[in-house]
Amino acid sequence: MGDPLPGWREGTAKAAIIDFVTRVSGSGADHVPESERIATFDNDGTLWCEQPAQVQALFVIDRVRELAATDPELAQRQPFKALLEGDHAKLHALGKQGILQLFFATHAGMTLRDFNTMAHRWQASALHPTLGRRFIDLVYQPQLELLDYLRASGFRCFIVTGGGIDFVRAFSEARYGVPPEQVIGSSARLRLDISARGLVLVKLPELGSFNDREAKVENIGLHIGRRPILAFGNSDGDLAMLRFVAAGAGPRLALLVHHDDAEREFAYDRDFALSPLAEALDRAADYRIMLVSMKDDWASVFPPDR
Amino acid sequence: MGDPLPGWREGTAKAAIIDFVTRVSGSGADHVPESERIATFDNDGTLWCEQPAQVQALFVIDRVRELAATDPELAQRQPFKALLEGDHAKLHALGKQGILQLFFATHAGMTLRDFNTMAHRWQASALHPTLGRRFIDLVYQPQLELLDYLRASGFRCFIVTGGGIDFVRAFSEARYGVPPEQVIGSSARLRLDISARGLVLVKLPELGSFNDREAKVENIGLHIGRRPILAFGNSDGDLAMLRFVAAGAGPRLALLVHHDDAEREFAYDRDFALSPLAEALDRAADYRIMLVSMKDDWASVFPPDR
Repeated sequence: MGDPLPGWREGTAKAAIIDFVTRVSGSGADHVPESERIATFDNDGTLWCEQPAQVQALFVIDRVRELAATDPELAQRQPFKALLEGDHAKLHALGKQGILQLFFATHAGMTLRDFNTMAHRWQASALHPTLGRRFIDLVYQPQLELLDYLRASGFRCFIVTGGGIDFVRAFSEARYGVPPEQVIGSSARLRLDISARGLVLVKLPELGSFNDREAKVENIGLHIGRRPILAFGNSDGDLAMLRFVAAGAGPRLALLVHHDDAEREFAYDRDFALSPLAEALDRAADYRIMLVSMKDDWASVFPPDR
Repeated sequence: MGDPLPGWREGTAKAAIIDFVTRVSGSGADHVPESERIATFDNDGTLWCEQPAQVQALFVIDRVRELAATDPELAQRQPFKALLEGDHAKLHALGKQGILQLFFATHAGMTLRDFNTMAHRWQASALHPTLGRRFIDLVYQPQLELLDYLRASGFRCFIVTGGGIDFVRAFSEARYGVPPEQVIGSSARLRLDISARGLVLVKLPELGSFNDREAKVENIGLHIGRRPILAFGNSDGDLAMLRFVAAGAGPRLALLVHHDDAEREFAYDRDFALSPLAEALDRAADYRIMLVSMKDDWASVFPPDR
């Protein structure tokens, strides 16, 4: 068999991944039955680029612009006004949950299907402000290989994201090979509506779950119902999930991307106010979490142009 | 290929199922991509026997008995007292949601893992009061065949139950081949607890979701994120799910077990107060739901003794 992870440089992280996968899928003492081979991945900053702004936040700005075109009053109200003026600082000052609520508010009343179509269309064309490529092309090549490698070794891979569940579901299958039912995320409540539109699910402005920190683990309990054996994150928002996975009995692997590559991507950790990496960085060893350096461990960052 | 459904008698229902599966998995005009081949099944009364009492309600009685052994005061308090006296009528008078809340109350504070072990142990031995077999052997043979047939035809099969999600997950993989993450059910809230027990998920006494009627569809939206193309139920509690599935574009199949077989199982419909079948029976044709008669359509009901 050739190298399953050509986008990973030889080193401690790559060796640990291949050793782990070989052990759990082999027939030795560390064998894990296929039904238990569950891996969970964060999305923003772990599977795709989250700098200089969270992709979903940029989607919200475009959505507010669209709404303002037919509702000029909206354009004069805060926080919409600041957003339309391109004030990223103000947007980020809302915090992850604030952005999420804005996100939910701006498509309340839509059917799940219409939202999916809208998100899909946006994702198919929206470009990263500095890298000039589409966001869905700014997924990490080494992680695409890892997802494939895990699936080929009998794993089921889930995404456990603080982002909106339906926003990520709109591209996860095509881009990551992860079907909608294997995406767990922040969610607005849904209501079954019986109307001229038929029987449809409609998005409500109410927050159902803000899938960050401890909630990631609680939602793993709700959606998956067992403890994953591998998890991959990149910020303190993933720390509870990584610790939960590492603390289980038997072979476990908890990994953390460290964005230390200003040349090929971005370098940031504890100062990224929206989603800092601090405690997880300082205490990785205590929590049995392995650090992955983007600069040193990844031979490539983004896939070649398609 | 031999008959994939030997437990089904030749007739309209069997022909409709085979025709549907052949069309959606074939390459003709009704082809449905494998990723969209999602089927959802109710559990109580659809996949296993729910008479003369819901299995989960009997589990609760045994659990209350166990708690009362170490807490004699509990045995004197209602509704526990009535339960310990074997008053099924009083138990059923609580309603489905009342039983569920009792169920959650009696294992609040347990870890998900400990609950799973307890439920598993109970299911491995508890016997049906009149049929004398274990509940997990009182699953419907024709439905086991249907689940296998659907999976062999590229479907992913989900359970969407009003029963407790963790109670059903404790046997779904072994008995139905449905892994925990493909079980959607009523749920208590979970909390990540960091204590001497390690990092564990603990069940709270709070209701997270009562997965009945419209909520079944809303939870399909949350857990699956797309509209199934086949659904199977047996009561008005499944009607919203059946209608939602039938109302989608393209080929759809919505099925309803009618318990009309007093000889081999039980005969009941609109008079079963806990979970009546009335509106769905009267309006099946309007809603494009196909009735399956246990008496006429099923050649066998339960699997042979193992």
